[in-house]
Amino acid sequence: MVNPLLAPELRELLAEKSYGELCEFCDSIHPAQVAEFLSALNPKEIWEVLSHLSPHLRGEVFSHIDEDVQLEMIQTLGRDVMGKLLSDMPPDDRVDLVKQLSDEQRQAIIPAMAQAEREDLRRLIAYPEGTAGSVMTSEYATLTPDLTVDEALLKLRREAPDKETIYYCYVVDENHRLKGFISLKDLIVAPHGARVKDVMYEDVISARASDDQEEVARKIQKYDLLAIPVLDDDQRLVGIITHDDAMDILQQEQQEDVEKLMAIGGTHEVGVYTKLSAWEHFKSRTPWILVLAVMGFVSGFIIQSYEGILLQVAILASFMPMLTGTGGNAGSQSATLVIRALAVKEITVKDSLKVLFKEFGVAFLMSLVLASIAYLRVIVFYGDGAALNHITPQAVGLAVALALALQVIVSTLIGALLPLAAVSVKIDPAVVASPLLATMVDIFGLLIYFNVAKLILGL
Amino acid sequence: MVNPLLAPELRELLAEKSYGELCEFCDSIHPAQVAEFLSALNPKEIWEVLSHLSPHLRGEVFSHIDEDVQLEMIQTLGRDVMGKLLSDMPPDDRVDLVKQLSDEQRQAIIPAMAQAEREDLRRLIAYPEGTAGSVMTSEYATLTPDLTVDEALLKLRREAPDKETIYYCYVVDENHRLKGFISLKDLIVAPHGARVKDVMYEDVISARASDDQEEVARKIQKYDLLAIPVLDDDQRLVGIITHDDAMDILQQEQQEDVEKLMAIGGTHEVGVYTKLSAWEHFKSRTPWILVLAVMGFVSGFIIQSYEGILLQVAILASFMPMLTGTGGNAGSQSATLVIRALAVKEITVKDSLKVLFKEFGVAFLMSLVLASIAYLRVIVFYGDGAALNHITPQAVGLAVALALALQVIVSTLIGALLPLAAVSVKIDPAVVASPLLATMVDIFGLLIYFNVAKLILGL
Repeated sequence: MVNPLLAPELRELLAEKSYGELCEFCDSIHPAQVAEFLSALNPKEIWEVLSHLSPHLRGEVFSHIDEDVQLEMIQTLGRDVMGKLLSDMPPDDRVDLVKQLSDEQRQAIIPAMAQAEREDLRRLIAYPEGTAGSVMTSEYATLTPDLTVDEALLKLRREAPDKETIYYCYVVDENHRLKGFISLKDLIVAPHGARVKDVMYEDVISARASDDQEEVARKIQKYDLLAIPVLDDDQRLVGIITHDDAMDILQQEQQEDVEKLMAIGGTHEVGVYTKLSAWEHFKSRTPWILVLAVMGFVSGFIIQSYEGILLQVAILASFMPMLTGTGGNAGSQSATLVIRALAVKEITVKDSLKVLFKEFGVAFLMSLVLASIAYLRVIVFYGDGAALNHITPQAVGLAVALALALQVIVSTLIGALLPLAAVSVKIDPAVVASPLLATMVDIFGLLIYFNVAKLILGL
Repeated sequence: MVNPLLAPELRELLAEKSYGELCEFCDSIHPAQVAEFLSALNPKEIWEVLSHLSPHLRGEVFSHIDEDVQLEMIQTLGRDVMGKLLSDMPPDDRVDLVKQLSDEQRQAIIPAMAQAEREDLRRLIAYPEGTAGSVMTSEYATLTPDLTVDEALLKLRREAPDKETIYYCYVVDENHRLKGFISLKDLIVAPHGARVKDVMYEDVISARASDDQEEVARKIQKYDLLAIPVLDDDQRLVGIITHDDAMDILQQEQQEDVEKLMAIGGTHEVGVYTKLSAWEHFKSRTPWILVLAVMGFVSGFIIQSYEGILLQVAILASFMPMLTGTGGNAGSQSATLVIRALAVKEITVKDSLKVLFKEFGVAFLMSLVLASIAYLRVIVFYGDGAALNHITPQAVGLAVALALALQVIVSTLIGALLPLAAVSVKIDPAVVASPLLATMVDIFGLLIYFNVAKLILGL
């Protein structure tokens, strides 16, 4: 769709100062595509192009430019230029960018912004990270209840260029309290003489500014909304969150869950893999690996204290990796499914018993299969008893099979229990699951193994 | 938002046959909320309510009802009722439901549908699973280039009730080839006398029916679209995919990736954890665990063949879990990040060398830290040499530290390499990463460990 050959042409238009053509070109394609073209230019050239666009388009294009380039432009261009650019940006993207600036930069640029936008920024930036308030925008369309449908359409037509969306309109009273909702589709279909209050929906699906952003995004997903209104504690409309931001939030949150599960610390935003240096990767990735490695020493102590058993039946050492590994896999299966079911609110802590019963059932069936295979494995390879130091292969097979069965059941239950326990004490289950699970599964697995072996082999 | 106390009230309205009030109530809230209320009723009661709603709302509500209940209704209610209900459903949801039916059920119900909907269903259901065609809907709004803006608005007003969205309109010629795009916002703002062809965008962001559904969903996300037009090979418009379906697709695909990474076979749709029985969980989850366990036997053979070393320096066995575990963690870190970067197209196979260099850098730094800690661990706990069978603690510490360093570097590189290799031979990287990675990391880790120990301890 985007023709990379057009970037030189863009430069040519710039050199020739054919600003009319330039604007026409930028007007004819999606702002994100304009931003892609601009990424081939330097900050001064980018501003040269942007300065000739309409304020609204300029803000849209700038907000689609890579954050790195945005920050480079802030460093390169003067505070007046940047104050202007920030004023033109969509309010939610503006907040995101300003959050990336140093205190110094903020103090230089913010006073250069237009007053209304400055106040809007101060208001939005005050909401704590992760709340609905921190991701909402203030460019929404409002109507009052007594307008006629025709007056409402006229108002929307006038205001359309400045609003993030005019497809959803929120009806507010004189105190800006949310009274209803009407879509542009409803307005267009409504009889001309009708008043907004007669055709609006009074039962509006809404969110609070203090709500968790993921929860609000899920509401948008559940009800297939284009946007959701965000209210303060007095039912006053303070912003909206649009479907595209909800999509980004859900993706971000799910990605964070995966990375926590896979023992990757820090927040790796989607699409920054190549941008972070090896040193930055090192800093964010090492802590978890380190914690897990140190926890791994615990298994070492257990093995050391059962050293005598290994020296008597050396072959037992060769089943250790399979045993701990299978336990780890079974545990992370159940943990992943339970974490996801909790995240989408399919289950709550109240369902713990039901979940544990189901996981026990799954693990029991699984352990039958795995134990049989482990038993056969021992009989087939050590059936002659040569490597077994006067213990029958049947006994060794039984010990390995029984230990594996117990290990799978215990690990599956730990995998299900940990996220439930984490949620009940209000910890993010994805954070707690990975390191604790790995360690606990290893410890229980080894203890089960050595004790079962002691018992069955009479060591 | 949804008041659970209203379900009995709904039943009362039904019993009293207050159908007017019933419809008014259902009209005043979101179709998904109506569906939630209805879930408390039995199939016959649900139909009783639905039959009194407008066809459009009936279809919307029915498509929001749980799939289980939908299927139950199909079993319970007659073919004429179901043919009617299916005819009223949004085309994309209808296709999804029909795909769940048995051949017998299809043959019974499809002939009972209205002809236009029947043909639409036959057309949509033909697209292979996973393509854009398989998730698109055919209820979109079209305009012709020569219409005036006022005529266009009039047409939209008339057609609005039957369209999934009228906010994006697609301009087609007499052969239904896509010529342009215009949003309702653009139409409302445009001068009254203008023609559609003068104000439409000609450069339309579109997809092909054969495109991968995830790719198309990402396009919708990238350009913040409400919908994307889907074209056949002759540039003819055959459907649209809307933002809410894109959100569901992205979530589904990401979830599938996680489950593949966490060794969970089969496709677990979001929200079906509790619906699947323990037996069904067992069937879908066991295969991976089994494959991984059998692959774990390979590590067993390696340990067995180096048994002599363990018998000479028994303490070496106690470091095995930490060594293989740390390798596994480092490998799955890099694999997860590389898989994600590939999925969002941040990197391609062409960047393999760059990725490997970066991962080597990260792993090298990480291995320095981990090796130091492992060395200290040995010195601190075995400094007196008592447990070491006449080998100096310094030598054991060095062997463990060096083996761990090599293991972290090798595992990290394997973790990065596997997804890249998978993509270059067109296999889903998430599928290949988990089992192969775990096995390879264990095997390489043990080989490195025993050989480093042999070399340094002179065994």
